[in-house]
Amino acid sequence: MALLFDKVLVIGTGLIGGSLAKAMRERHLCTTVAGFGRNHQSLQLGVSLGVIDSVVEDLAAAVAESDLIVLGVPTLSITDYLPVIRQHRKPSCIVTDVASVKGEIAAALEQFFGTVPPWFILGHPIAGSEQSGIAASNANLYIQHKVILTPVASTDPSQLEQVAALWKAVGATVEQMGVEQHDTVLAATSHLPHALAYTLVDTLAGLDVNVDVFRFAAGGFRDFTRIASSHPVMWHDIMLANREAILRVIGEFQQHLDQLAEAIRQGDSEAILTLFERAKAARDQYAELLANQKKEDSPC
Amino acid sequence: MALLFDKVLVIGTGLIGGSLAKAMRERHLCTTVAGFGRNHQSLQLGVSLGVIDSVVEDLAAAVAESDLIVLGVPTLSITDYLPVIRQHRKPSCIVTDVASVKGEIAAALEQFFGTVPPWFILGHPIAGSEQSGIAASNANLYIQHKVILTPVASTDPSQLEQVAALWKAVGATVEQMGVEQHDTVLAATSHLPHALAYTLVDTLAGLDVNVDVFRFAAGGFRDFTRIASSHPVMWHDIMLANREAILRVIGEFQQHLDQLAEAIRQGDSEAILTLFERAKAARDQYAELLANQKKEDSPC
Repeated sequence: MALLFDKVLVIGTGLIGGSLAKAMRERHLCTTVAGFGRNHQSLQLGVSLGVIDSVVEDLAAAVAESDLIVLGVPTLSITDYLPVIRQHRKPSCIVTDVASVKGEIAAALEQFFGTVPPWFILGHPIAGSEQSGIAASNANLYIQHKVILTPVASTDPSQLEQVAALWKAVGATVEQMGVEQHDTVLAATSHLPHALAYTLVDTLAGLDVNVDVFRFAAGGFRDFTRIASSHPVMWHDIMLANREAILRVIGEFQQHLDQLAEAIRQGDSEAILTLFERAKAARDQYAELLANQKKEDSPC
Repeated sequence: MALLFDKVLVIGTGLIGGSLAKAMRERHLCTTVAGFGRNHQSLQLGVSLGVIDSVVEDLAAAVAESDLIVLGVPTLSITDYLPVIRQHRKPSCIVTDVASVKGEIAAALEQFFGTVPPWFILGHPIAGSEQSGIAASNANLYIQHKVILTPVASTDPSQLEQVAALWKAVGATVEQMGVEQHDTVLAATSHLPHALAYTLVDTLAGLDVNVDVFRFAAGGFRDFTRIASSHPVMWHDIMLANREAILRVIGEFQQHLDQLAEAIRQGDSEAILTLFERAKAARDQYAELLANQKKEDSPC
């Protein structure tokens, strides 16, 4: 495949950043990928696993020579790296992030730079797993997954295009939407389910009968709670960064759950059955959509 | 394998009853399996798929000649079959059920027979999928799955043992517990997650942004909501039959979710992180338990 960038720097080489690094290297989309992070040992593991080419010792120097910087750190840590980027980034360098919340990042950029810089491309790959860390990096993670880019008025279209091309080259389907819409949609489809999964597991672990609870859980429970094994700091950051949208959907959910509880209390068969049938129809339609997407998107 | 029963009758040949029928036939645990249900066409499909040997036309006659009757109908339909069983069952015939709620069935039996008959073995295989119907029957469904039997004071120990032997012969691990404990544990690990999954999908389908919501859902959402594609009538019955225990765990869950929402609202980092870390630890421990069970239980 064509070379898209010369030197790439990935700051935060967890599952998401690490998988992108590995995919770029395996597909020869750049000449080198350097990795920076707080855990030196895991970065060295990354080198031996072929995830990155080298471990960054001097962040300022690495920023200065990079053509693309990928911020793979948890949402609330991104602002920590803005000073070094402002001071050392070379003019042609593109910066992009992979955070699950875009409004908070856009606001932080505005506060720090006065505006979202034209070369800062806000992005979010909708991929991941309950695994985390550089050792979980997977060069095929993005194949047939969506990546949402959320350009703002000040975004440079050609640099946006370059980031889109990178994601396509690692197998993803790229979509664009507004920052606010992104945060609303993701609050519903991703942040709320994580909040519920964590809450469910915590509720069950606290029950009096807990000695038996997990022993007798079936496959449905396993799948339902898998995401409660996700990275706590990452999800803590998301909950706070997308606070308003998340509280809104939690509120909607609570209202619906209250209605179901009330129907069960009243023995209102029709209400329960109607809800379950409507939900099953929506879920089956979603399963069909997924199946069709799989057919359309051929892996790159 | 040894013959455990002569003639078997399965009333309600959905996924659970059908899979047991198919497993018994494939493992030669009985001489014949007859199937009874409301949908004649699907029963005939069952014969052609090798799930059952024959379709029952005369239920009274079939009951009269059976050595084992398996009730595979939804929880609230079981009582419909008690009259024909009382009238036509031969004295040596064992009856067992596979319903997800045991207290309601025990109460119905007490009301109808004055006591839970010694030959009625209350059982519940913790297996299934979001698929339903005879065509989804799978002879290997019970391998490495738990089956809970909930004997009461009046249960005949040797007939209990015969039903346990049947489940073991189709690959399951058999456990025993009290009726009430079963319903409490299952309310937490199975009934509550189903209530949440149905509610989540229904909440999302009703959002203003629903055009995008499902298109941008990731793998976590897919797994989290899979069980919302389950059989609505079956789950309606479970919600009503295990009403009190389910309302109790819904209440516990709501309290925990309120606490999380409040922590997000207040920006209480420590509370959010503590909850997520505690839940992740519990979930990881559960995953380990599952992995160990898989190693211990070799398929039969």
